[in-house]
Amino acid sequence: MASTRTETDSMGAIEVPAERYWGAQTQRSIENFPIGVDRFKWQRPIIRALGILKKAAAEANAELGELPQDIARLVVQAADEVEQGRLDAEFPLVVFQTGSGTQSNMNANEVIANRAIELGGGQRGSKSPVHPNDHVNRGQSSNDTFPTAMHIAVAQQANDHLLPSVQRLHDVLAEKSRAFDTVVKTGRTHLQDATPITLGQEIGAWVAQIEFSLQAVRAALPGIYDLAIGGTAVGTGLNAHPRFGETAAGHIARITGLPFQAAPNKFFALSAHDALVNFSAALRTLAGGLMKMANDVRWLASGPRCGIGELIIPDNEPGSSIMPGKVNPTQCEAMTMVCVQVYGNDAATAFAGSQGNFQLNVFKPVMVHNVLESIELLGDACAAFTDHCALGIEPNLEQIEHNLEKNLMLVTALNRHIGYDRAAAIAKKAQKEKTTLRAAALELGFVTDQQYDEWIVPIDMTHSG
Amino acid sequence: MASTRTETDSMGAIEVPAERYWGAQTQRSIENFPIGVDRFKWQRPIIRALGILKKAAAEANAELGELPQDIARLVVQAADEVEQGRLDAEFPLVVFQTGSGTQSNMNANEVIANRAIELGGGQRGSKSPVHPNDHVNRGQSSNDTFPTAMHIAVAQQANDHLLPSVQRLHDVLAEKSRAFDTVVKTGRTHLQDATPITLGQEIGAWVAQIEFSLQAVRAALPGIYDLAIGGTAVGTGLNAHPRFGETAAGHIARITGLPFQAAPNKFFALSAHDALVNFSAALRTLAGGLMKMANDVRWLASGPRCGIGELIIPDNEPGSSIMPGKVNPTQCEAMTMVCVQVYGNDAATAFAGSQGNFQLNVFKPVMVHNVLESIELLGDACAAFTDHCALGIEPNLEQIEHNLEKNLMLVTALNRHIGYDRAAAIAKKAQKEKTTLRAAALELGFVTDQQYDEWIVPIDMTHSG
Amino acid sequence: MASTRTETDSMGAIEVPAERYWGAQTQRSIENFPIGVDRFKWQRPIIRALGILKKAAAEANAELGELPQDIARLVVQAADEVEQGRLDAEFPLVVFQTGSGTQSNMNANEVIANRAIELGGGQRGSKSPVHPNDHVNRGQSSNDTFPTAMHIAVAQQANDHLLPSVQRLHDVLAEKSRAFDTVVKTGRTHLQDATPITLGQEIGAWVAQIEFSLQAVRAALPGIYDLAIGGTAVGTGLNAHPRFGETAAGHIARITGLPFQAAPNKFFALSAHDALVNFSAALRTLAGGLMKMANDVRWLASGPRCGIGELIIPDNEPGSSIMPGKVNPTQCEAMTMVCVQVYGNDAATAFAGSQGNFQLNVFKPVMVHNVLESIELLGDACAAFTDHCALGIEPNLEQIEHNLEKNLMLVTALNRHIGYDRAAAIAKKAQKEKTTLRAAALELGFVTDQQYDEWIVPIDMTHSG
Amino acid sequence: MASTRTETDSMGAIEVPAERYWGAQTQRSIENFPIGVDRFKWQRPIIRALGILKKAAAEANAELGELPQDIARLVVQAADEVEQGRLDAEFPLVVFQTGSGTQSNMNANEVIANRAIELGGGQRGSKSPVHPNDHVNRGQSSNDTFPTAMHIAVAQQANDHLLPSVQRLHDVLAEKSRAFDTVVKTGRTHLQDATPITLGQEIGAWVAQIEFSLQAVRAALPGIYDLAIGGTAVGTGLNAHPRFGETAAGHIARITGLPFQAAPNKFFALSAHDALVNFSAALRTLAGGLMKMANDVRWLASGPRCGIGELIIPDNEPGSSIMPGKVNPTQCEAMTMVCVQVYGNDAATAFAGSQGNFQLNVFKPVMVHNVLESIELLGDACAAFTDHCALGIEPNLEQIEHNLEKNLMLVTALNRHIGYDRAAAIAKKAQKEKTTLRAAALELGFVTDQQYDEWIVPIDMTHSG
Repeated sequence: MASTRTETDSMGAIEVPAERYWGAQTQRSIENFPIGVDRFKWQRPIIRALGILKKAAAEANAELGELPQDIARLVVQAADEVEQGRLDAEFPLVVFQTGSGTQSNMNANEVIANRAIELGGGQRGSKSPVHPNDHVNRGQSSNDTFPTAMHIAVAQQANDHLLPSVQRLHDVLAEKSRAFDTVVKTGRTHLQDATPITLGQEIGAWVAQIEFSLQAVRAALPGIYDLAIGGTAVGTGLNAHPRFGETAAGHIARITGLPFQAAPNKFFALSAHDALVNFSAALRTLAGGLMKMANDVRWLASGPRCGIGELIIPDNEPGSSIMPGKVNPTQCEAMTMVCVQVYGNDAATAFAGSQGNFQLNVFKPVMVHNVLESIELLGDACAAFTDHCALGIEPNLEQIEHNLEKNLMLVTALNRHIGYDRAAAIAKKAQKEKTTLRAAALELGFVTDQQYDEWIVPIDMTHSG
Repeated sequence: MASTRTETDSMGAIEVPAERYWGAQTQRSIENFPIGVDRFKWQRPIIRALGILKKAAAEANAELGELPQDIARLVVQAADEVEQGRLDAEFPLVVFQTGSGTQSNMNANEVIANRAIELGGGQRGSKSPVHPNDHVNRGQSSNDTFPTAMHIAVAQQANDHLLPSVQRLHDVLAEKSRAFDTVVKTGRTHLQDATPITLGQEIGAWVAQIEFSLQAVRAALPGIYDLAIGGTAVGTGLNAHPRFGETAAGHIARITGLPFQAAPNKFFALSAHDALVNFSAALRTLAGGLMKMANDVRWLASGPRCGIGELIIPDNEPGSSIMPGKVNPTQCEAMTMVCVQVYGNDAATAFAGSQGNFQLNVFKPVMVHNVLESIELLGDACAAFTDHCALGIEPNLEQIEHNLEKNLMLVTALNRHIGYDRAAAIAKKAQKEKTTLRAAALELGFVTDQQYDEWIVPIDMTHSG
Repeated sequence: MASTRTETDSMGAIEVPAERYWGAQTQRSIENFPIGVDRFKWQRPIIRALGILKKAAAEANAELGELPQDIARLVVQAADEVEQGRLDAEFPLVVFQTGSGTQSNMNANEVIANRAIELGGGQRGSKSPVHPNDHVNRGQSSNDTFPTAMHIAVAQQANDHLLPSVQRLHDVLAEKSRAFDTVVKTGRTHLQDATPITLGQEIGAWVAQIEFSLQAVRAALPGIYDLAIGGTAVGTGLNAHPRFGETAAGHIARITGLPFQAAPNKFFALSAHDALVNFSAALRTLAGGLMKMANDVRWLASGPRCGIGELIIPDNEPGSSIMPGKVNPTQCEAMTMVCVQVYGNDAATAFAGSQGNFQLNVFKPVMVHNVLESIELLGDACAAFTDHCALGIEPNLEQIEHNLEKNLMLVTALNRHIGYDRAAAIAKKAQKEKTTLRAAALELGFVTDQQYDEWIVPIDMTHSG
Repeated sequence: MASTRTETDSMGAIEVPAERYWGAQTQRSIENFPIGVDRFKWQRPIIRALGILKKAAAEANAELGELPQDIARLVVQAADEVEQGRLDAEFPLVVFQTGSGTQSNMNANEVIANRAIELGGGQRGSKSPVHPNDHVNRGQSSNDTFPTAMHIAVAQQANDHLLPSVQRLHDVLAEKSRAFDTVVKTGRTHLQDATPITLGQEIGAWVAQIEFSLQAVRAALPGIYDLAIGGTAVGTGLNAHPRFGETAAGHIARITGLPFQAAPNKFFALSAHDALVNFSAALRTLAGGLMKMANDVRWLASGPRCGIGELIIPDNEPGSSIMPGKVNPTQCEAMTMVCVQVYGNDAATAFAGSQGNFQLNVFKPVMVHNVLESIELLGDACAAFTDHCALGIEPNLEQIEHNLEKNLMLVTALNRHIGYDRAAAIAKKAQKEKTTLRAAALELGFVTDQQYDEWIVPIDMTHSG
């Protein structure tokens, strides 16, 4: 039988596994919230953010004379271990708990306090010389710390994981766009043959779309850099030193290298998380763009013989357990599934964002969970797609030329010379009689052979270069 | 300057246009809720439902001795005019008003009272001999009447507009499925060529999908047939005759010919509208299925020369203002836009459905508005699609045969004879060397010419017939 | 350095960890889809479903003479180990892979084949005497097996986890409703004081709402019991025995004790997953109802002194890291966060459901992932809420009586006696002059003291009992 | 019988009502798309935008030598009438049409051509001297004109309708925040009593939240100022003068006074509408914030006697058709219903935004429809809410003081003096024994009477001023 020790909180005593650093409130939460325990425990980004936050808070309190230097030093050392990931196993709580994240804030307080006590030679659970509330949580409330940790986690993951991965996909596609800028091909609108474009232009539209979303994501970051810290329980900053928020935010900025600052209105920072909703929306815009791109890729690569077949994408795995030799656009499929998931996560985030009351929004954990999941999936999917699909995209030149030759919409080049109505008549005749544009044009007598050659030049129609 | 008359309610007097039947509360609502007035006034379905409801209520009250026969007769006559659409101009209020629909209930009470007064030879605004609250609203509250009207409107529109229109599309496609049941063509999975199917099977999947949704919509109707009437303000039925709810529901059933009944739990019927949420979800399932069908149609009709091109759909209008001769799958586009709108409407409905408090959900108007809009759009779009697209769908036999011949996945028929690995090798060789399956198979020595003919028979591979 | 063995598939050879049962295609998927690997590996429900499916398929093939008895026996034995959970570590693949779930089907085929080979005394990777495609996947394709596994997993989790948990919450609340059926209290509409109800009626509305959703969930199950098995790659059943689908479905029904059957239209069963969309919508309806209930609970328990305060809920943990003595409605918060997540998951599911093309919908994994997550969270949250909140709900009788006494809406009982307008005048006077209803009524001379006592009897106004 | 005239297009002749300016393609669209005709015709913003666009295009073409001056003059004059609203009745088409808006572009071309012909003394339908395609649509395609009109319409409505209305609500609330900055009241977190705040702070949080959304909306406008014009059919600008896009955009900027410019990547501008998706998301963020504000208002105004009752809001209409004297927070209800609708509209917009293919997204009409509807509703609702609710918000000082006095969370001020654990004990004792904080504190001996007075000063706890 596992040994335990007794921990206490304002509700009384409770047994905790002896080998664990966590305390009474963490233990209560484990018992009260057995919801999704296999997949919904907080992961590195939140745990790291709590470590950073508690370290910064202790430093700020020490600086402002709110915490004795020796206590602060112990707290900083323990919090640093949390930040570094050495105590991840001490964070057993799940997303679906108190809506302010109170218990995860207390989890951090308890683990850091007990680890600090140990570092200071004391006994776990003794709350001496380091008290989880009075010292580790000094000048703080879950209501301001948890949203602060949320913002730290999102900003770090966005900068470290998402943006580089999306940027790399962007750059690889931009390179493809340049490489294929002289490949003239059939444009398509309404899924119907349209006037010619270059493959470079086609891919360039994806690049521009990703670039737009990258800007949207970056434009949504400043709201994330505003931290609730200093607001304490309701936004007034009660029980915190008046300069605690800005001082702690400064330390967080220093530790992370990101431009965090104290939120100008703490009441807003506790009662609503519109910056997260906005950020989630930017992820959704990105997902929408990636979905369009991935759909284009798989349609252009459709076939091999009975589809469009203008792109060749890498064969990464056997495509079918029953149809031998089949190769499927699996990276596109994984990507579009991720995009759909991001849409769903965003819907949850925005719904939650509307449900605050008075001085608190109590959907904090579910909001940050969805945003972090979207960041992770988009970052991972862009990396996989880049490595296993985008880098290997090649034009199927034979099919591209074959399609372009047949394309009746080349007739559009004649509009300026013979008018829309006569150009339309040529296209309709060619389609009806299954002949070429040239044959129909000549037969109708609207152009001469020489004019046809002069006026219908696909590469000129692309206005490229 | 328009003449007015004075109407009063519990807040006092207010001027109302002299020619109007409505009273003080309607007038206040016009002034207080100038929100979306051009597009968000209640339309026929809700006005008709209010007429039916008030007629049924008067009949029930008379039957139960709660209303003098002569008063009831006047109310019934006036309410009948509302039902018939002769007083539509008297319903000027919009969706975005009080969340219980109170003012639309009062609008009906006021218009019916004043019209009944007039029919009885009295003077509008006099509340005599017919009082809007004490007589027309007898035994009722907005909290039970408005949701009752919501259910009546939805059930009627579903039965009269939506289901026949969807059923007709279903039947037309079923007929197409039968007509093309011997047209063998390339199947496609992952957008890639797959083993053969018949066009009848392909269209039959759409038919089955629509059939599934029709059943889902029908299965969601019983909840709509449960009426809140009889619950009055909070569900207790205070101020209504104990048998008023069931009696009124009986009259509503008789008038409409639909199996309405009093809801078994009135508290639930006022405080939540899960039957509407569920119904909206069935509409969404239908929209999802129609979207897949419409997408299939436009992809199969893509081209005319550089796409899949296996279906021919009607040319209804010039496709492009710049590309002459272009014909676009416009009915598919209108349909998929409707589907997207239905998804959005459903999201609004379900969000609203979660936001009740205590004895009332005050998102009633917006919920029924979205459901009715979805019903209208789906019904209209299915009718337009049937008439202008589905009826005219024809196979492009030449292209279908051309594609089938090239399809490497015919090799799958060999799995049972030579095993998956060797079949895969044949397909890969054929694709790599741009040759036929037969040539690759023979060259690899896995089958004889005769075996090839015997084992690879596309129509047999479809298991049709 | 870890030792490996060589496995092959139609793309060639690849190294696989020697101690693993999985083969080449699983290994390729691990390498190609490093997306969300910490949280998105398939869990028990899908792995178990794959085990059941492969067992049933082998039994069906043996029965139909498609598989030698000895091979079938080995496959059944290995598949049984998968079902029982003894090989969970052999399923390393994630949700975001090929959209047909091909690689998870192959993962099952490979693991079962290698384990069966081992049981038969052979050598892993030798594909002899048991071949992953030709034997384990006999008569199957990922396109029909994966959706079959999806349905098995959802049906089992719904029956084993979700329904019992929701039913228990329902029953506990129904018992509370009965227990408090004589507690008369203030009703509330528009958040405003309304006519009286009993606490039993108020809780009874939650019970009725949960009952409605339970029925909706159950009504959505039959679509889940229709299995795609037998359709193989495109729905035609190519390469499967004509009776394979129904036979395998029969075995699945026997193994699980659930009424599974072969889907009547396999083309629909592969190309769309409307049954899952519909089921997801039922979960959303349930979530909407639970959200309303949980919101009611926390508002009724708000305070302790400056809120409504009519319910007392259990104190499970300290409520605030800064405000001592605060107790928060944390189970309500966890529940509403779960509800919001279910809404998001449903949005993803429905979006994915609309995106099929031709003979396949390639959003299968993300769809079943979201549905299973919603099932798990709702089941867990209902259990936690029941244990840690619902069971402990008690009325705060003192506050309930205090509120009821003050409630001006008791005046409504006078409507029938003195008319709406005079009743309104009484209430307005009482509110304006901060006096009691009785005082205002008497002063206005609309009722006598005796009439007041006779006509205003809160318990009678509830029409309970 | 109405007289008609014959109009022609590339599909042939069709009869058009003689009195109408529209031509063949408009007429075909009326007949082909009878979808939602009562509520889904384009309204002023789109019609005006088409007028502006066509005027600017003619001016640009004339300037670049692409159109004779006299023709251009006629086109400009006719387009100006469209802009001014004198020809609104000539725009009978609905949202659910071709997904590129082709027919609405042609509607504008036809109406302007026929009106210009008339102004030039010619005969309607003659296409001389002004041709709808060759002159009015010169250098344009529906694929670039319709999205240009979409952006013009959205930008104008955002600037002229939405932003002023939201700003006014913001300013009125800001003024309320200042007016009530010394009203100390109970803060609330988790719906539970929390430490004190001022009413000014509480309202200030709403102000800050609206300010955040105003910035988000403004930050989303630059993407809207990028116009597709110049891209023609596929983005290449085929058939347009190379400087047509920038020149036309310049004229549009001049006419509207808004900083429009030609989009840098036309391929992106046609194939995706991420700027609209992003803008829609900003509207959703705004809606989320307004929902929270409106919910706070109605909860704070709940009662009048059995709720929180700390705010008094205007009585605008009788609240109940059955409960006399009831006043409901109807402006809050209309506002939250609008918010829910905006969420739904946004879901539709974002879904549509993901569904582009190749060089075109064919969900253009439904996207702009939803964004314009959201703009209209939010603008209208903010105006109504400001006028009929916000301006009249007053504190119920008596209730505020009454609540504050009872609030146990004042104990938090003691944390810094006696530590968290002892402060918690005081609060728990007071709650359990239904006594005051002071009594409990003194009895426990943790503070003296004098310390209590010194340490617990509600206004100081708000850190205001």
